[in-house]
Amino acid sequence: MPEFLTLLPPDQAREKLLSHLSKAKVDSESIAVDAAVGRVTADDVLAPHPLPEFPRTTVDGYAVRARDTFGATDSLPTYLNLIGEVPMGDEPSFEIEAGQCALIHTGGMLPHGADAVVMLEYTQQIVGVGSSRPEIEIFKSVADGENVIRIGEDVAKDQRVISKGTVLRPAEVGGLMALGIMSLRVATKPKIGLISTGDEVIEPSQRPRPGQVRDINSYTLAALVEKSGGIAIRYGIFGDSFEVLKEAAAKALHECDVVIITAGSSASTRDMTAEVIRQLGEPGVLVHGINTRPGKPTILGVCNGKAVIGLPGNPVSALVNGYLFVVPVIEKLMGALPKPKATLRAQLTVNLPSQAGREDWWAVKLKAENGIWIAEPIFGKSNLIFTLAAADGLLKINPDATGLSAGEMVDVALI
Amino acid sequence: MPEFLTLLPPDQAREKLLSHLSKAKVDSESIAVDAAVGRVTADDVLAPHPLPEFPRTTVDGYAVRARDTFGATDSLPTYLNLIGEVPMGDEPSFEIEAGQCALIHTGGMLPHGADAVVMLEYTQQIVGVGSSRPEIEIFKSVADGENVIRIGEDVAKDQRVISKGTVLRPAEVGGLMALGIMSLRVATKPKIGLISTGDEVIEPSQRPRPGQVRDINSYTLAALVEKSGGIAIRYGIFGDSFEVLKEAAAKALHECDVVIITAGSSASTRDMTAEVIRQLGEPGVLVHGINTRPGKPTILGVCNGKAVIGLPGNPVSALVNGYLFVVPVIEKLMGALPKPKATLRAQLTVNLPSQAGREDWWAVKLKAENGIWIAEPIFGKSNLIFTLAAADGLLKINPDATGLSAGEMVDVALI
Repeated sequence: MPEFLTLLPPDQAREKLLSHLSKAKVDSESIAVDAAVGRVTADDVLAPHPLPEFPRTTVDGYAVRARDTFGATDSLPTYLNLIGEVPMGDEPSFEIEAGQCALIHTGGMLPHGADAVVMLEYTQQIVGVGSSRPEIEIFKSVADGENVIRIGEDVAKDQRVISKGTVLRPAEVGGLMALGIMSLRVATKPKIGLISTGDEVIEPSQRPRPGQVRDINSYTLAALVEKSGGIAIRYGIFGDSFEVLKEAAAKALHECDVVIITAGSSASTRDMTAEVIRQLGEPGVLVHGINTRPGKPTILGVCNGKAVIGLPGNPVSALVNGYLFVVPVIEKLMGALPKPKATLRAQLTVNLPSQAGREDWWAVKLKAENGIWIAEPIFGKSNLIFTLAAADGLLKINPDATGLSAGEMVDVALI
Repeated sequence: MPEFLTLLPPDQAREKLLSHLSKAKVDSESIAVDAAVGRVTADDVLAPHPLPEFPRTTVDGYAVRARDTFGATDSLPTYLNLIGEVPMGDEPSFEIEAGQCALIHTGGMLPHGADAVVMLEYTQQIVGVGSSRPEIEIFKSVADGENVIRIGEDVAKDQRVISKGTVLRPAEVGGLMALGIMSLRVATKPKIGLISTGDEVIEPSQRPRPGQVRDINSYTLAALVEKSGGIAIRYGIFGDSFEVLKEAAAKALHECDVVIITAGSSASTRDMTAEVIRQLGEPGVLVHGINTRPGKPTILGVCNGKAVIGLPGNPVSALVNGYLFVVPVIEKLMGALPKPKATLRAQLTVNLPSQAGREDWWAVKLKAENGIWIAEPIFGKSNLIFTLAAADGLLKINPDATGLSAGEMVDVALI
């Protein structure tokens, strides 16, 4: 007879699992910043020096003493003596005194004495008759500090510029380079052991006999794990034998930070996974049965401080529940700070009924029509893998809803 | 004096660039499917055989001839003779005849003669007194094909299961594995040559003297290129010498599929880049000046069939314009089909004025407040790199708007 489960809402189930992993963080390692995109910082990063380290101009123009320009207008310009040009990449050899200015290019270092820059557009160079020194007409006054970035205005010395737990992006790589930080400590990639079970399951490279199917889950989950920052280790396929499965799971638990067992589709292997997790370590099974579709039979466990997750054998259930439960575990182990997640706003084409109390995830296809996105659910008798391969994203129906209406605007999570 | 530019709207500028690259696609190569996530398929993928290859049950229950169950209800059950159990992973050795049924587990192969499965929940096994053959009480009728996936119902033989130009995700990996496809042809990663210019720019590993700054752009753009599926090749930093820059650009153009030159901040290097692109090959500069902020001085060119892009030296401009122009070029070269892009809906905290006709991109920080996301623009005197490192995403103000209002719901592109 089918096993009866007490179903937990997915958010609550996830929270329960994660709360047991509070001390399960992986180690850290030092890596080169230019290979660090996607990695998670293991420490706060403090600025070793201010940025910029010298006052710089943000425009092309003339470095001046702001007070010398006060009152300058189109009709009543101010005249300043041009005493030189600031070299790019070098310290100016001169100082600006009262009534003087110097040509300066964007990014150039402000000479001593100068405190502002007048944009080129508001100036004109004139050469007085018989005069050896060129003069600059200034048509617009500038305030102290105008068009200048002061020392430390971007970043002060010892300022925390990147927090521990940040997932590094191109922008952070740039910030680190600006400070001359060429390597940093990041969380080691967690190792995720993947086990498939089922007498009917064979390696994808083999030709199935009637009644056999190829292993999909080890590969979809491996792809998801690698994409999410982990290292996937495939342990292979194990038949419906409790002792063999238990031994494989124990080995994986010893060698990895997380173990995922995808059940064969028969009832016996589904029950077997829960029993293996119970025997593998303490506290064992935390959640058996989640109020979500697909994914009701998902098992969340912790054995000796490590997450052990039993996923349904159906490839769509396994992958959708991988997104829901495996990815957050990987993020938690790496110490990643919670991040906003992007979705795509689209108009639903049809009514989607749902059972109140249950969280549903529908595979949807997106099409651009009349300037908006249209979300078309992919219906099918069963959750076959090509349902997901044909989908652009997943649409969630919250537990408190009994469905979504045709024409409604919905948020689709791209996969 | 500053160069005056005729500014093109960014969408139009991008279209102009891409239309010149229609024949510039990169080659393809064969790779293992389990290492193919993120790669772009070079061919359509057709199913070598149907899926499933045998009729399977989607539930645990009894395989029956549907017509034997017609009329069965709770109060008036039908009785069928149990003749066996379908083994997992094997072909059943028996056939279902009139009045017979067999125990079957989810995923099991339907025996000959059976055309539907009654779920276990709607059955009960009874053992008649003195009877050697167990009988099954059926409380619910099933239709022909109910709870069964027929041969080819997921995918028919020769059906196109993945289109050319698809960016492979875990779901596609699963689909390919289900079909026993272990390797496939994908677009070769395009090589993107990166050149930095400016007398003031030094390698990030060096200690800057007053007036010098570290090269940020080669590294942020390399990170963006790698993240977008390309291979970044850094050619280093070149001073403000036309001949030296031209030679470096010619070398990069010869060795790479795309060349990106980030200008030093002085006016002379900015003008130099355009001239180098003009001399490098035909047709040369296509667009000089784009009506966007940041990024006005961006140069889009094509030399002998390859894109050559001049980006502003300011690190935020360079990276934002990398997202706007370099990423689409990489996607085009790989032949990637256009994909929906996810954003995050958030409420803007302040008024953001903008110039009509110009497309603005603001760096924003996101915060969750009272169950919604709040987008807070990051203001700063200049576009410094830590503006972007502190930002969660970019907010676009369309050219036809003169700004966005505080309280408005906006779509933020996460970076």
